[in-house]
Amino acid sequence: MAAADYVIGFDMGGTKMLASVLDDSFATVGTAKMRTPPGAGNDEVLSVVVRTVRDALSDAGIDAKQVRAIGIAVPGPIDHAAGRIIALTNVGVEKMDLRDLLSAQIGIPVVLDNDVNAGTFGEYVAGAAKGYRDVIGVFPGTGVGGGIIIGGHLYRGHGGRAGEIGHITVDVGGRMCGCGKYGCLEAVSSRTAIAKDLVHLAMIGEAPTILERAGTDITRVKSGVIKRAMNAGEESVIRVVERAAWYLGVGLGSCLDIFDPDVVVLGGGLVEKLGDAYLQPVERSMRDSNMIGSAAPLVAASLGDDSVVVGAAALALEELENGR
Amino acid sequence: MAAADYVIGFDMGGTKMLASVLDDSFATVGTAKMRTPPGAGNDEVLSVVVRTVRDALSDAGIDAKQVRAIGIAVPGPIDHAAGRIIALTNVGVEKMDLRDLLSAQIGIPVVLDNDVNAGTFGEYVAGAAKGYRDVIGVFPGTGVGGGIIIGGHLYRGHGGRAGEIGHITVDVGGRMCGCGKYGCLEAVSSRTAIAKDLVHLAMIGEAPTILERAGTDITRVKSGVIKRAMNAGEESVIRVVERAAWYLGVGLGSCLDIFDPDVVVLGGGLVEKLGDAYLQPVERSMRDSNMIGSAAPLVAASLGDDSVVVGAAALALEELENGR
Repeated sequence: MAAADYVIGFDMGGTKMLASVLDDSFATVGTAKMRTPPGAGNDEVLSVVVRTVRDALSDAGIDAKQVRAIGIAVPGPIDHAAGRIIALTNVGVEKMDLRDLLSAQIGIPVVLDNDVNAGTFGEYVAGAAKGYRDVIGVFPGTGVGGGIIIGGHLYRGHGGRAGEIGHITVDVGGRMCGCGKYGCLEAVSSRTAIAKDLVHLAMIGEAPTILERAGTDITRVKSGVIKRAMNAGEESVIRVVERAAWYLGVGLGSCLDIFDPDVVVLGGGLVEKLGDAYLQPVERSMRDSNMIGSAAPLVAASLGDDSVVVGAAALALEELENGR
Repeated sequence: MAAADYVIGFDMGGTKMLASVLDDSFATVGTAKMRTPPGAGNDEVLSVVVRTVRDALSDAGIDAKQVRAIGIAVPGPIDHAAGRIIALTNVGVEKMDLRDLLSAQIGIPVVLDNDVNAGTFGEYVAGAAKGYRDVIGVFPGTGVGGGIIIGGHLYRGHGGRAGEIGHITVDVGGRMCGCGKYGCLEAVSSRTAIAKDLVHLAMIGEAPTILERAGTDITRVKSGVIKRAMNAGEESVIRVVERAAWYLGVGLGSCLDIFDPDVVVLGGGLVEKLGDAYLQPVERSMRDSNMIGSAAPLVAASLGDDSVVVGAAALALEELENGR
């Protein structure tokens, strides 16, 4: 392989940081992981990022000069054009010019993106959406993230904030959303929406597995706990999950009517843990909820956590080579 | 002007057909209009289309050889790639290969599109959205049509059916939509949705102007009648219109969150007749209903009926020259 044929994908998560050195077919040749220091502030976070990148380079046994670009995916609002993190409250980061700070220290061009854009693009270049051109990516989790690929390119929109599929209104006047609106797709279909109902069920004695594993604390209702309760045959839990899946399908149906896409890819913890018990009701509802009769397949993301790393790396190359 | 520097835009409406010969800056140099023969069937409709095109050429004083393309906008489902009208029930047309039939008779390449795509593209090339690149066009009327321009190109999607913004679900379980779903944007914000409430008001004696001008027949509640009732200060009518405008803004807010566009252009009869009394509540609601804080301007279409003619012509040129 010629010099500078590697690329680094970096997933700057709220709890852990993951850097992978990838070859030109996006296969991992070296990797490093560090705990994200909670509430650390800009300077400490930068030094952890630098260390993680250097560790990944060591692990791969290559030099920074052999790396064309670092693509960093961030789970929060960024200014893509300026290469700046606007805020990562959990991490204690605010107004951080990560692109310029990091590339000055490490000598490699850096590109910032949000994690859902990266995850969608990763599935497009190397995962379940490979070979398609117009792709809708949706990642239900704490919220509902979205990414849009049009003609093989990530669509960012005017201010780089496009793709907020979780905030389309599907139930005007409905449940409160974390964004301040009511009835957003996220408000009715995210894992948080499910958790709010499940802790209610736990409280009234109708979800014993939830009560045992998570108490009545919504932050403890993870996808694995939900799966256990469903496997235990807790009917009330199954109904809550299926209703959230139905709502998600309603939102996806709207996306079909708007985009007439080639494929819809669904990722994140609910999809990974619950599998067909979740995907099938989502798909039934999506088919019922679009007018154009779209036959676009609904596929589960196939790269797991790597989708974000691969996508961040691929977006960085795309930006440096094509100016997109 | 060199030979073949003209283009014809053709608006194949349900009640009238309009052909305009346009120069290379989309200015009209000749025009012809004919009544659409209701329920005539494919053969008679084709002969009326041919006659209208020939009359427009005569009016412009130019020969068919000087025309590069005819763009035809159709108010119903088409197969763009095949150049076929799938169905125009009012007009009595079904499975009509208009592109091939017309170009065989007239010797000019023909391109078919739907009328809302054409209207949006017309406003982009020569109207209120000129100079922008990512444009959402919405035309509330009998239904709510939508068109999407991304990076300066009409976005059609996988099967050419993209842009059905009127069928995003905003009020799941809400009012019935003509498409068979419930709570579509069209179901709660179209002129038909308004008319359904206004004939109810007319029936119970709360909308005297509506009763006088339209009776209790929803097909007679046109935008001009609604305007009269609002101008007469009929409070119940104003509330119904403002509620529909509010709903439309909710749907547009979702479009902002999805697309982060440069501009939103609003056209059609309600916008033309009601002006600011309609646009202002739509805009307030749109601003309240997006999460990303988009500052995209909401502008009224400026070309009137010409937007469809100009857009159809421009789309035909775009297709022949760039294969889009």
